[in-house]
Amino acid sequence: MKVLVVNAGSSSLKYQLIEMETETVLCKGVIEKIGLEGSLITHKYGDQKVVIEDTINDHTKAFNLLIDCLVNKDYGVIDSVEEIGAIGHRVVHSGEEFDSSTYVGDEEMKKLQSVAHLAPLHNPANIACIQLCKSLLPKVPNVAVFDTAFHSTMPKKAKMYGIPYEIYEKYQIRRYGFHGTSHKFVSGEAINYLTSKGLPCGKIVTCHLGNGSSISAVKDGKCVDTSMGMTPMAGVMMGTRCGDIDPAIVEMIADNTGMSLKETTNYLNKQSGFAGVSGVSSDARELCKAAAEGNERAQLAKDMFAYQVQKFIGSYAVAMNGLDCVVFTGGIGENSWEFRELIMQNTEFLGIAFDQEKNKTKEARGNFCDLSKPESKVKVLVIPTNEELVIARETKEIVQSL
Amino acid sequence: MKVLVVNAGSSSLKYQLIEMETETVLCKGVIEKIGLEGSLITHKYGDQKVVIEDTINDHTKAFNLLIDCLVNKDYGVIDSVEEIGAIGHRVVHSGEEFDSSTYVGDEEMKKLQSVAHLAPLHNPANIACIQLCKSLLPKVPNVAVFDTAFHSTMPKKAKMYGIPYEIYEKYQIRRYGFHGTSHKFVSGEAINYLTSKGLPCGKIVTCHLGNGSSISAVKDGKCVDTSMGMTPMAGVMMGTRCGDIDPAIVEMIADNTGMSLKETTNYLNKQSGFAGVSGVSSDARELCKAAAEGNERAQLAKDMFAYQVQKFIGSYAVAMNGLDCVVFTGGIGENSWEFRELIMQNTEFLGIAFDQEKNKTKEARGNFCDLSKPESKVKVLVIPTNEELVIARETKEIVQSL
Repeated sequence: MKVLVVNAGSSSLKYQLIEMETETVLCKGVIEKIGLEGSLITHKYGDQKVVIEDTINDHTKAFNLLIDCLVNKDYGVIDSVEEIGAIGHRVVHSGEEFDSSTYVGDEEMKKLQSVAHLAPLHNPANIACIQLCKSLLPKVPNVAVFDTAFHSTMPKKAKMYGIPYEIYEKYQIRRYGFHGTSHKFVSGEAINYLTSKGLPCGKIVTCHLGNGSSISAVKDGKCVDTSMGMTPMAGVMMGTRCGDIDPAIVEMIADNTGMSLKETTNYLNKQSGFAGVSGVSSDARELCKAAAEGNERAQLAKDMFAYQVQKFIGSYAVAMNGLDCVVFTGGIGENSWEFRELIMQNTEFLGIAFDQEKNKTKEARGNFCDLSKPESKVKVLVIPTNEELVIARETKEIVQSL
Repeated sequence: MKVLVVNAGSSSLKYQLIEMETETVLCKGVIEKIGLEGSLITHKYGDQKVVIEDTINDHTKAFNLLIDCLVNKDYGVIDSVEEIGAIGHRVVHSGEEFDSSTYVGDEEMKKLQSVAHLAPLHNPANIACIQLCKSLLPKVPNVAVFDTAFHSTMPKKAKMYGIPYEIYEKYQIRRYGFHGTSHKFVSGEAINYLTSKGLPCGKIVTCHLGNGSSISAVKDGKCVDTSMGMTPMAGVMMGTRCGDIDPAIVEMIADNTGMSLKETTNYLNKQSGFAGVSGVSSDARELCKAAAEGNERAQLAKDMFAYQVQKFIGSYAVAMNGLDCVVFTGGIGENSWEFRELIMQNTEFLGIAFDQEKNKTKEARGNFCDLSKPESKVKVLVIPTNEELVIARETKEIVQSL
């Protein structure tokens, strides 16, 4: 079966066509600036790349271009859309309506629409794209794979906030967590690796560190806690997001600056984190560069981030009453030896013996790599994530079980 | 020297007169409902207690009544106010103006006033009381002892939030922490105890758990992190405070309920925590009672609180790269065997062997008590706090060094 994986944003559309027999990516691409000036599609197949600049006014046009890329005589990879066995959609927020991936029929579509407001920047675009697929390719089944689903196994003591229970009941405000497909993928890969070595794998902390960052506690393969919350703003500080702060600060900033509540939340989402603390950049590479050149605020942002990640690792080790493995993934986790080194500093107490030399090698950059010394009780792994593959796998599984 | 310790709230005034040679409390009391119906003073000396109901319209009247209680022929403990060597005042928030206790002269008073807005519910009452003492007892020196001071040694990576640096610079918004005199007292007592036993004492987590709760990491006697933040609303959930939540929730609650930002912050401060989650009570005893009777939301609130405290202990163990001792203090920490048991569950990984039987004994209720089994690598202590004594000691020290 060939599965088309689609990740639709408000002005972008990413896709991969995956042959599931071999889990091979046949082609992938991204359509950018939909509805804006300078819209274009970048399509990759084999070692080739095609860039098409075109006026792409809406997602319908975008999706038609995507289909053309798949079946095009010159740079397509299939003969006809009939070859697409299913479409897997990344959907950000499941609310309380779903706790796992789902086939999207009429009933499910209604439920999806009922929780769209919980992720107003993402869910509406995800839903619109599913509807588009249903109308343009009516014979192909659509599956929704949620960013939140892997975290649905959290116990209530981890899911709930110390806010009035009625607020949870009425407005579904609780911890959901995000990056679920990534945490699921890398924890699964870690379990395979550790099992093959005859090592324990019941207590894993997965660190998805990138422009957005989240950390999860995975016990016996199931998520028991995660650092993001009701929204992706919570947890550790990120590129532009503040992460966890004293909730009273929201009012203090609004009062002091004269911003509205909406503007304040936006400010904490878009102008905080690395960018706000350093004043340099939201980009981890720029931050490391500036810190190396002696910029104190860039160094502070690095130190804060690493310290906050460390504290989550410690708290989750206690949550699981032990630790077998720490996994690094995501843009920073896979590629930044500097951040990994900072985070692993002074963690001997947890049973970690981190191989600082190996951490700096090319081998440890963007590749599966074991960064723990042989004597380390806790394994430290770099595992490149593959969210699209998780979406494709779940899509195939659900469609085959229909 | 005799030191008068004063803790002034907006409608209350607590006091103790302490003979510093022997650190004996000569008398103590509380004046309640100042400016309200039913105002009264409760004065204790030796084994005796006097309750005086009177119209107490303002703090001047309250303070004059206090002085009368001290020197009264029948229930007083000194002959004249001349015997008072100094007055030590609890002041909640130091902002960035002070990082330790201070004599309050004219300069210091100006600085105090400049940070009063940082704790609008507490600092103005604290300052007004110092001014009152200066005018009523002009010969007696006044010392301010801050709730935040013990935490001033936190490194910047623990002090700062992931918000724009300018917000910190302009409005002094960072983590300050509270209950500092309590964390200082119990960590000091723990260090004395552990040293006397020849045990390591460099890495202590102090849990001040009461109506308000905070947890601190104390490394080599100095605070390196704490759970409360810019305000006492942050950290673990409390009697009525929500503790740490996704900061985006503030806007979600305001939007959903129609409350203003100010009302929402107030709601998270006064109607959340134990009270809001359980729907039963903000009081830990009531919560335990309801949970024992099968109330699921009361049990959830208990579980959430214990879990959140556990996670802080774990994160601070990593912050210090080790753990020698956990201290319980405060109303819940000193008295609730149930909460201590819940918090210490599944912490063997940290090197804790908790004595569950001893934990339930009378000995462990409100008394200094070692609750760790002999083989425990980490000592678990109950230490009744004594914030007034810390205030008196610092006051004496500062006045003697003038």
